[in-house]
Amino acid sequence: MERKYAIGVDYGTESGRVLLVDVATGEEIATHVTPYKHGVLDEALPNGSRLETDWALQHPRDYLDVIYRSVPEVISMAGTNPKDIIGIGIDFTSSTILPLDQNGNPLCFHPKWEDSPHSWVKLWKHHAAQEEADDITRVAQERNEAFLSRYGSKISSEWMFPKILQILREAPEIFEEADLFIEACDWVTYRLTNNLIRSSNTCGYKAFWNKEHGYPEASFFKAVDPRIENILNTKMRGTVRSIGEKAGELTEEVAHRLGLLPGIAVAVGIIDAHAGVPAVGAVRPGQLVMAMGTSTCHMLISDKEEAIEGVCGIVEDGIIPGYYSYETGQVAVGDSFAWYIEQAVPSYVKQQAEEAKLSEHQFLEEKASTYKPGQSGLIALDWWNGNRSVLVDANLSGLIVGLSLATKPEEIYRAILESTAFGTRKIIESFTEAGVVVNEIFACGGLPQRNKLLMQMYADITNREIKIADSKQTTALGAAMYAVVAAGKKNGGYDTIFEAAENMARVKEETFIPIPEHVQIYDELYKHYLELHDYFGRDKYHIMHSLKRLRSLNPKAVIAK
Amino acid sequence: MERKYAIGVDYGTESGRVLLVDVATGEEIATHVTPYKHGVLDEALPNGSRLETDWALQHPRDYLDVIYRSVPEVISMAGTNPKDIIGIGIDFTSSTILPLDQNGNPLCFHPKWEDSPHSWVKLWKHHAAQEEADDITRVAQERNEAFLSRYGSKISSEWMFPKILQILREAPEIFEEADLFIEACDWVTYRLTNNLIRSSNTCGYKAFWNKEHGYPEASFFKAVDPRIENILNTKMRGTVRSIGEKAGELTEEVAHRLGLLPGIAVAVGIIDAHAGVPAVGAVRPGQLVMAMGTSTCHMLISDKEEAIEGVCGIVEDGIIPGYYSYETGQVAVGDSFAWYIEQAVPSYVKQQAEEAKLSEHQFLEEKASTYKPGQSGLIALDWWNGNRSVLVDANLSGLIVGLSLATKPEEIYRAILESTAFGTRKIIESFTEAGVVVNEIFACGGLPQRNKLLMQMYADITNREIKIADSKQTTALGAAMYAVVAAGKKNGGYDTIFEAAENMARVKEETFIPIPEHVQIYDELYKHYLELHDYFGRDKYHIMHSLKRLRSLNPKAVIAK
Repeated sequence: MERKYAIGVDYGTESGRVLLVDVATGEEIATHVTPYKHGVLDEALPNGSRLETDWALQHPRDYLDVIYRSVPEVISMAGTNPKDIIGIGIDFTSSTILPLDQNGNPLCFHPKWEDSPHSWVKLWKHHAAQEEADDITRVAQERNEAFLSRYGSKISSEWMFPKILQILREAPEIFEEADLFIEACDWVTYRLTNNLIRSSNTCGYKAFWNKEHGYPEASFFKAVDPRIENILNTKMRGTVRSIGEKAGELTEEVAHRLGLLPGIAVAVGIIDAHAGVPAVGAVRPGQLVMAMGTSTCHMLISDKEEAIEGVCGIVEDGIIPGYYSYETGQVAVGDSFAWYIEQAVPSYVKQQAEEAKLSEHQFLEEKASTYKPGQSGLIALDWWNGNRSVLVDANLSGLIVGLSLATKPEEIYRAILESTAFGTRKIIESFTEAGVVVNEIFACGGLPQRNKLLMQMYADITNREIKIADSKQTTALGAAMYAVVAAGKKNGGYDTIFEAAENMARVKEETFIPIPEHVQIYDELYKHYLELHDYFGRDKYHIMHSLKRLRSLNPKAVIAK
Repeated sequence: MERKYAIGVDYGTESGRVLLVDVATGEEIATHVTPYKHGVLDEALPNGSRLETDWALQHPRDYLDVIYRSVPEVISMAGTNPKDIIGIGIDFTSSTILPLDQNGNPLCFHPKWEDSPHSWVKLWKHHAAQEEADDITRVAQERNEAFLSRYGSKISSEWMFPKILQILREAPEIFEEADLFIEACDWVTYRLTNNLIRSSNTCGYKAFWNKEHGYPEASFFKAVDPRIENILNTKMRGTVRSIGEKAGELTEEVAHRLGLLPGIAVAVGIIDAHAGVPAVGAVRPGQLVMAMGTSTCHMLISDKEEAIEGVCGIVEDGIIPGYYSYETGQVAVGDSFAWYIEQAVPSYVKQQAEEAKLSEHQFLEEKASTYKPGQSGLIALDWWNGNRSVLVDANLSGLIVGLSLATKPEEIYRAILESTAFGTRKIIESFTEAGVVVNEIFACGGLPQRNKLLMQMYADITNREIKIADSKQTTALGAAMYAVVAAGKKNGGYDTIFEAAENMARVKEETFIPIPEHVQIYDELYKHYLELHDYFGRDKYHIMHSLKRLRSLNPKAVIAK
């Protein structure tokens, strides 16, 4: 029997990755990354115009460059015959949206609009639509909109409609000119297939769409702003198609450019983090996947629907057909570790790391590993880029408590790592307190591969075993799995995501097991995290005393500077 | 008329400074510094034995080295005839105490005791006697001791009796062996004069002594611990003599060793920061002096006695005879700036500073100066070494709120600087709310000389003009002024500290004036400081929103990395 292959394209925040996988085993045959030439535009447009605080844009040409460059590259690297490639699937950051002209081209491609910031792609972490998000939340509350409870009762500034509303308010001429607003994910499948299809996954998670009820009514949009009363029939038109289905077939033109056969299956696109779920085999109720990178996205498969504070989305058939999937997350995880390394690691540590031939991350991890829980005397709130879970508030910020003249860099590093694990525990408890079972935890993404201290902290702080994806490109693998299902058995693929998961998903044998004495101390620290989380230190006196006490329980080893 | 001179000896935390001044004008003729060979022993004894967290000891031989080395040095530098030197005065960190043997020698000089940490000098910032301080506070509260209200109703772990009680509890054999416990300040005048005299200043501020009532009764000490019932007559014996008087005359032996004439006046010693008060001419009610260095000591002269929360001492004749003086302070000021530079300034900033040929402090000050108040989005609590004012709690710790992925080092530096100014405003308000007038502010010490941004912040945040001492060694100058008064007019000095201040004190012509638009923003930030101070963030939601809003009022200049 001849081997079949599929392609997964993973669009991240800084680059896009193309992966060629074996359909029978999930084996990763070849992979290639194309960095976005323009990266994240958070200070200025390509022409140098300054952007305001909290803006984050991208250049849509960079997305096309990823497939044009990296797809031919993996085919050539693998020496694969294009006729054995049965499908292509896309995953993408979200809600990353852009306005299109009547030909389906981005408005920012037009010289007329290229100086207008609102004509560009708004990246997921564009946080300048907070007022719009707050207004949408308020209107939905006033109208008792049923959809609100599926989004944790609070609309995030990262989602689609707040971003569109910001365009309407601040640049009505762009709003007017736009023929369509679309998720970048759906725009790429549109370019590949010429079919205007919106994914049930992006619409469900980022645009208030629901399998049973569809979008909110026109009267809701009218109440938000009369100018968007009919947006669903105009600038938001497009069939919503379920995840796991086929968006269309690869056009002649694109197939030629990519070196693929025209007519192969193109899967309905999916949010990047969500693609990791089937890739670790988490396709059944109670299985929680943490996609850990610059941010962490938590995805839980369940057979029931319960309103949960701060869950950013509950979507039926959202990730795995036949089940509800819950999404929530932490907006800065790897990002805050990177911030710390760049902005706050002193030169003596950098020098010691260089002498030890380690990266600063590795060196600090090594030093931080010599500490016991509680020993740093520090506790932090993981809100360096706001809070996306439970509180859903982009205006929150990071906090470190317990600093002293004796505080060392590795202690701060440790506290920032721990803070993200406390944030995850808070998320898990929100599920379990609402009666939604969590009985197995998987971690995928870049962080779990590199940082063992971090994963042990997650095990210790959640008091649960953590299983790690056995792939460095889990999301691209997941995207390829949806492509295989879109192709179907008759084309050498599978008919369901369950079959695909059984054959193609992989988890490492080595897992992280909670250490009882760590669990005990972290239970105590977590109480403080909760106090800080809920009251941000109302009981300041007791917290600091207790931190101090915990610290003195383990006199710190003196580390020569 | 021939010129007369006096010597002031300033014992700081890391070194001792000797200053020779002109009696007629206060002109500083020569100065010499001797660093303490053993520095601060906070990790290990000289023999390498580890110390516990929060310990801070010193080697008393280092104190003697200062006078033996630096006094002859200044006389030789200035080419002064020893017969024209009319007196010597000492100022010292406090409460810095040590146990002595029956010959007045430190116990730690004996090989038998040198391995016992409790035989060494306990430096002011030794913070391991917190439990003892708490116990003393509790007993004083239970007994309604009148003295408690003069110390802000709370005893600091830095003071004399908590430190002695720690010795009694943890090393009863050292307590037993000690013939005397004494302030290092008083020990040095004892060595110079052979008179066992205790200063009204150190006893008043650090040992519960009061001009009208003396020490607390024996029954109080008994209630603390029966073993110290009679301590006042035994290990704490020694006449308390008022500041401004003569402790005795220089002995033949020491005079010979120092190159001075025997019999010259040795002033009653004073706490280092307090010596700065007359040196800037603050000798009348309403005048507040901030001695700003590693820590800041606030001293206010007043004609009335009011109980004020967190004032660590109200002492009649404590600094200026005829008036009450109030002392309070911030325990880590320059120390926390130094911590930041050492432990959290990234290497790229260090490199830029080197390229600009500036110290990291100077470079960060320059960058931070380009920001407006509120622009960093950060606010900090200045408790890197606990809180000595208002809250009097060594177990408190530092806090930074408002951290984000965009936070730059100069912003954190700025926030730490500002936090100390907010702390000072809180102190000033505690006075004025209690009806104790503050109408003129002076700053002395190392920081005001170097850091203009910092002093402008103090003016803006307190909304008051700040006057700066025109001397880099204000405390040594003050110590010399007391020596001049101890010598008296008949020996070429002055009869009162008022006359000495009139002739010898100096303030710079340039002062720092509040900038109205800064005052306004800082008023708003100060409200948050108070919320954090009192509730440590009970209203977290609003604080962070407001910080964010203030930040976005002034879009930050992009600084290339």
